[in-house]
Amino acid sequence: MSTAAMLDTHPSSATLDRDALARAIDACLACSQTCTACADACLAEPDVSEMVRCIRDDLDCADVCQATARILTRQTAGDPHLTRAVLEACIQACSTCAASCGEHREHHEHCRICADVCEACGQACRAVLHGL
Amino acid sequence: MSTAAMLDTHPSSATLDRDALARAIDACLACSQTCTACADACLAEPDVSEMVRCIRDDLDCADVCQATARILTRQTAGDPHLTRAVLEACIQACSTCAASCGEHREHHEHCRICADVCEACGQACRAVLHGL
Amino acid sequence: MSTAAMLDTHPSSATLDRDALARAIDACLACSQTCTACADACLAEPDVSEMVRCIRDDLDCADVCQATARILTRQTAGDPHLTRAVLEACIQACSTCAASCGEHREHHEHCRICADVCEACGQACRAVLHGL
Amino acid sequence: MSTAAMLDTHPSSATLDRDALARAIDACLACSQTCTACADACLAEPDVSEMVRCIRDDLDCADVCQATARILTRQTAGDPHLTRAVLEACIQACSTCAASCGEHREHHEHCRICADVCEACGQACRAVLHGL
Repeated sequence: MSTAAMLDTHPSSATLDRDALARAIDACLACSQTCTACADACLAEPDVSEMVRCIRDDLDCADVCQATARILTRQTAGDPHLTRAVLEACIQACSTCAASCGEHREHHEHCRICADVCEACGQACRAVLHGL
Repeated sequence: MSTAAMLDTHPSSATLDRDALARAIDACLACSQTCTACADACLAEPDVSEMVRCIRDDLDCADVCQATARILTRQTAGDPHLTRAVLEACIQACSTCAASCGEHREHHEHCRICADVCEACGQACRAVLHGL
Repeated sequence: MSTAAMLDTHPSSATLDRDALARAIDACLACSQTCTACADACLAEPDVSEMVRCIRDDLDCADVCQATARILTRQTAGDPHLTRAVLEACIQACSTCAASCGEHREHHEHCRICADVCEACGQACRAVLHGL
Repeated sequence: MSTAAMLDTHPSSATLDRDALARAIDACLACSQTCTACADACLAEPDVSEMVRCIRDDLDCADVCQATARILTRQTAGDPHLTRAVLEACIQACSTCAASCGEHREHHEHCRICADVCEACGQACRAVLHGL
């Protein structure tokens, strides 16, 4: 990922900590990808009817993380109130999905990885939120 | 749009007011489209350097409204805490963008329409939030 | 939807037929929303294990239609080769999803509506493609 | 990124080369992020009116790469015709954007990086397309 390198090329200097921001953007992208993959793997499981809540939470988390990655990426003339509200939604989405996937971590490896990636994303978003 | 018809076909009965939900989903889709169009029209204006904040807020609002439309559309096994956090982020995005576009409503018709569509979307989201 | 009104406010004159373009954008947004709703309704059906292919095709079609709506919305300095390739991908996504949902149109009303909306979206995209 | 690890956890065995697929998914995510950042950096440049085409192509490429990453991520019950059409659209988006950004590679470092990331993404997509 060229996230950190791109932040360095922006004509304005960043108002937020560069490294924390790059980590959060990369975590959101990884989380969106992992949740999309987990929803898809759950759908192919023989016990798919047990995985319905997990699939739902994966799909929501993928959408919120994707929007958050884009908004955090933009450094030009943004509104800190919006950054804050989007980070709070993303932290909630990651927490909800980590709990759902966590219930299946013993018998589905994709759910174990997904729960861990969601938790890491929530933490990376919290670090940016605290610096706002 | 077949939003309301699709809500009626869901195997579970909706926990939220069907009409308020359909109005908010349609408002989010209209707002996402209008903000994408406004960012693009601003980009083609001779005074583009005056429109930078407006373009930024349009792009953010389009992304948040798109994610919100998807999450509100899903009726299966969701988390009300996430619905609430996403609605709050969407209301903030609409408010931020309505203010930016509103500053240009006298000289750019696309900004006038966009500010009005953002305000309507914020209101439709607030109606769902109050019913949670 | 303010799609047609926004096309009229763009500082450049459209190179494509305004009405065909507005119809295709609105059809893509309706199709993306309907496919998201259909995937979610399928997930809540007692026979979810029979609906796996339908859910997959719904999710793909929602993503392609959403990207297509954005690209068709933009009128500033675009590349007709990209418009063409994206329309072709969208027509394929609609055709694939209409076929999957169509197999369930007798016993799931959401699949019947979704198949019809996908077909209408494919036709609206074909009309823009022919005018390129 | 846990892309490759997630592909390994899918209950079905992949029909495409696992490493080529993981590389293309990661390249699409990196390209979507980089194009979003490049559009934003261009918007903050003093010569923004010279960057209009570049911004437009960045926005389109970000949207197409994002949809492509999601569709390539899904391994359950997909349609190879859709995978092919989406890869072709993504290759076109990357080629269009690499050309636009490439024109500014001498004076804007974000455009240089973005052009290189677009080219790498196009190549990674071509590798998957050839294996279909």
